[in-house]
Amino acid sequence: MQVAYTIAEIAALVGAQRVTGADTGSITDLASLEAARPGDLSFLGNARYKAKVSASAATAILLPLDYAGEPAPGQVYLFVENPSVALARVCARIEQSLWPKLAPGIHPSAVVSPGARVDATAHVGPLCVVEEGAQIGAGSVLQASVFVGRDARIGEGCLIMPGCVIATMCLLGQRVRLQPGVVIGSDGFGYEFVAGRHERVPQVGTVVIGDDVEIGANSTLDRARFSRTVVGEGTKIDNLVQIAHNVVIGRHCILCAQVGISGSTTLEDFVILGGQSGLGGHITLGKGSKVGGGAGLAASIPAGAYVNGNPAIPYMLERRIAVLQQRLPDLFKRVEALEKK
Amino acid sequence: MQVAYTIAEIAALVGAQRVTGADTGSITDLASLEAARPGDLSFLGNARYKAKVSASAATAILLPLDYAGEPAPGQVYLFVENPSVALARVCARIEQSLWPKLAPGIHPSAVVSPGARVDATAHVGPLCVVEEGAQIGAGSVLQASVFVGRDARIGEGCLIMPGCVIATMCLLGQRVRLQPGVVIGSDGFGYEFVAGRHERVPQVGTVVIGDDVEIGANSTLDRARFSRTVVGEGTKIDNLVQIAHNVVIGRHCILCAQVGISGSTTLEDFVILGGQSGLGGHITLGKGSKVGGGAGLAASIPAGAYVNGNPAIPYMLERRIAVLQQRLPDLFKRVEALEKK
Amino acid sequence: MQVAYTIAEIAALVGAQRVTGADTGSITDLASLEAARPGDLSFLGNARYKAKVSASAATAILLPLDYAGEPAPGQVYLFVENPSVALARVCARIEQSLWPKLAPGIHPSAVVSPGARVDATAHVGPLCVVEEGAQIGAGSVLQASVFVGRDARIGEGCLIMPGCVIATMCLLGQRVRLQPGVVIGSDGFGYEFVAGRHERVPQVGTVVIGDDVEIGANSTLDRARFSRTVVGEGTKIDNLVQIAHNVVIGRHCILCAQVGISGSTTLEDFVILGGQSGLGGHITLGKGSKVGGGAGLAASIPAGAYVNGNPAIPYMLERRIAVLQQRLPDLFKRVEALEKK
Repeated sequence: MQVAYTIAEIAALVGAQRVTGADTGSITDLASLEAARPGDLSFLGNARYKAKVSASAATAILLPLDYAGEPAPGQVYLFVENPSVALARVCARIEQSLWPKLAPGIHPSAVVSPGARVDATAHVGPLCVVEEGAQIGAGSVLQASVFVGRDARIGEGCLIMPGCVIATMCLLGQRVRLQPGVVIGSDGFGYEFVAGRHERVPQVGTVVIGDDVEIGANSTLDRARFSRTVVGEGTKIDNLVQIAHNVVIGRHCILCAQVGISGSTTLEDFVILGGQSGLGGHITLGKGSKVGGGAGLAASIPAGAYVNGNPAIPYMLERRIAVLQQRLPDLFKRVEALEKK
Repeated sequence: MQVAYTIAEIAALVGAQRVTGADTGSITDLASLEAARPGDLSFLGNARYKAKVSASAATAILLPLDYAGEPAPGQVYLFVENPSVALARVCARIEQSLWPKLAPGIHPSAVVSPGARVDATAHVGPLCVVEEGAQIGAGSVLQASVFVGRDARIGEGCLIMPGCVIATMCLLGQRVRLQPGVVIGSDGFGYEFVAGRHERVPQVGTVVIGDDVEIGANSTLDRARFSRTVVGEGTKIDNLVQIAHNVVIGRHCILCAQVGISGSTTLEDFVILGGQSGLGGHITLGKGSKVGGGAGLAASIPAGAYVNGNPAIPYMLERRIAVLQQRLPDLFKRVEALEKK
Repeated sequence: MQVAYTIAEIAALVGAQRVTGADTGSITDLASLEAARPGDLSFLGNARYKAKVSASAATAILLPLDYAGEPAPGQVYLFVENPSVALARVCARIEQSLWPKLAPGIHPSAVVSPGARVDATAHVGPLCVVEEGAQIGAGSVLQASVFVGRDARIGEGCLIMPGCVIATMCLLGQRVRLQPGVVIGSDGFGYEFVAGRHERVPQVGTVVIGDDVEIGANSTLDRARFSRTVVGEGTKIDNLVQIAHNVVIGRHCILCAQVGISGSTTLEDFVILGGQSGLGGHITLGKGSKVGGGAGLAASIPAGAYVNGNPAIPYMLERRIAVLQQRLPDLFKRVEALEKK
């Protein structure tokens, strides 16, 4: 991480109630108790790893107040109410240095149309393109090499990382965070087979991204055939996810990496999709439903359902069948034996 | 969509034979009968949704000539021969405003080698790179931040969206359309295991893309080990698709999102691959064959075949087995009962 | 390939011991015996394809010394000790022309922070961004439109193709090769569900890429929650692969296209993952273990294991069960017959 904090700085940051051992070292990275090397800060987040503390090579360890033990020479123990909370505080501090607040303004290498409206507090980094009619809200950051198409609108406090494309007329809410390479508003995949050729069906809708949505690297979200492809407030999408045209995703959903959702499918709120799962088109997943990793689902499921497998079936049944499948060789033998009786 | 048309403009555009109701409103978006809100244009594309017309909140509705009913106050009915055709006409008009014809010329921020040949009618947008020996054909558009490598050739009337990479010596035909982030001509994935290490096998072939091919966002097509990776005329490829080296894809195929095709596999014409399906290497898929979504195919299939599942087997058999698998718990019980007799 | 070599150049390059036929033609491409067209160079790499030589339309064919036969009119045979080695020599020559050594220096359109350290022998191509504190090692090439974040470090002799993003503080070793669109150091996907919303867990670790690693187009590697996401020396990663936070990949592994690895999973050395396979989180794959294409693995496997299917089980068992599953319709009938007895 190439950070550098003194023990005293860490102690102050976490509000250490007691410090035991060598408090003169410096901290340049974080690591688990096992993986830690000299220079690392570690922590005992779960009492069942207590035995790993004394063997850890960490320079400093965050420990609960009731931990009994002495640091090795050159090592320091920092006693705090809640080591996990203390670690989170250190992480938050490091995060600020990873993503420092960038000064408002437009980098001279950016190509911003005179007809674009960039808020005075926004940051448009090097080599970005902002087209005619596009709007960038207060405090939003386009890190570098971001493309914002005609009449697209980006809300306030957004962070758009390098290489993202927000195509014409698409809308982002407040505090949206796009990892590098995200594509918002590519054409939906719609064709009609006419006279032996696939003729493109115009895709003239948009994509609307709600507040506090986060989208992972190189994920793609297609614009609607008409009307809107929607991602609801607070939903989090991992890397390399594909969202087809006219998909409507509710609020506070979780889509793990490499998920694919076919056209016009609806996710209600709080849906969770495991990695690499795939959904057919024109189906609805009820509130709080869950799809296992790698599952393939072609039919609607009710609120609260949990399905797995391909084709996806209720989770417990799928687990049971997976076990029975491994006993198929035995079953065939048993049937053969019965036939010989 | 942030468009705005008067009712009169819509009526003229679709050639309405009769207009009933409030013809003074304006249209700012399109939506289905159910989803429509005031300001939207909707349509009755299929007679079985007739009952939804009277409940629709759309400001204007395209209806067949024989529809009987009266618009609500403030609403307008536009009667046309074929509402679907009428809607398509509106979409085509909106599409022109989404993707207006860009003026010919090279944006001053683009980096175009003096040894590149850009047709005078082509548009090279901001921050594009066009290397030595590359050619851009008449009427083609590089929207922004597109990379065209040495000696690559782009035909006439192509549309290349932001962030695409067309690597050295690759060839695109006429009217090719690449969504944002497409990579054409990355190295094939070929290694030889020598003395405990994977040594790279040079990948010195190219990629050749036929006329009227369209490729979805962030899809990747590797250059051949030698000779050509080929995508035939009229084939449509969705987002996040992977095409390995020396794959040969025929004409008018459909590859849905997240498909992966291993090296040296051949697709004949009119093949359809469902989303997330994967093909092994060195196999051939016969003309018009079809692979279900999520299927995994490791062997060649004849013309017209339709396979599903992983490993992929004929579709009807796979469907039958999927049903029987769910009855496995019962089957085990029945065998147990027989054994007890 | 748009190369052009005379027969004499090829003969000299491969050290032909004998040349028979028309040695005045020129070679513009490579192809297999079957696919070759006039102008192509082909080769007999495997004796069992001997019968295809006489029917080949190649202009020149590399043949083993003991091959008996005469070239067609206008065709030339080049006899060499080992045709495969000879072809590799031709490929290596073409490769040099595909990827010529670029002159050191920083393109005037690149945006390089005064606080970055770019070695004098490195090449920073057009429209790259290199932020404060970043380092680019000797002989490394950023081809074009590459983003290198604050304090990121790129070793010596690396080749970074267009559109790659190396985020802040990430580290690349020597001779690393990134195909276009690779993202190194996107945020890990970590949230805590608090009061009905997913709160982001800060992702403050980095990504460390070992020497001689190669990564395919549009693949994504997330930074660690804290500490490091690691890819070991010599490992090769194909296109559209997803590596989650805190994954540790050993040396000389092979990850085929569209693989996904969940957080904190460990691959020991020489592991091979088939295309589209998916790994759950917090598991370990032993040295030299192998996962079949499309497989889904949620549990650790020992060194040397080979698993397949979803859920993944030992390969031989999975193959046997796949066969038995196709006999399920028959099995149900047999059990029915037994019940009727």
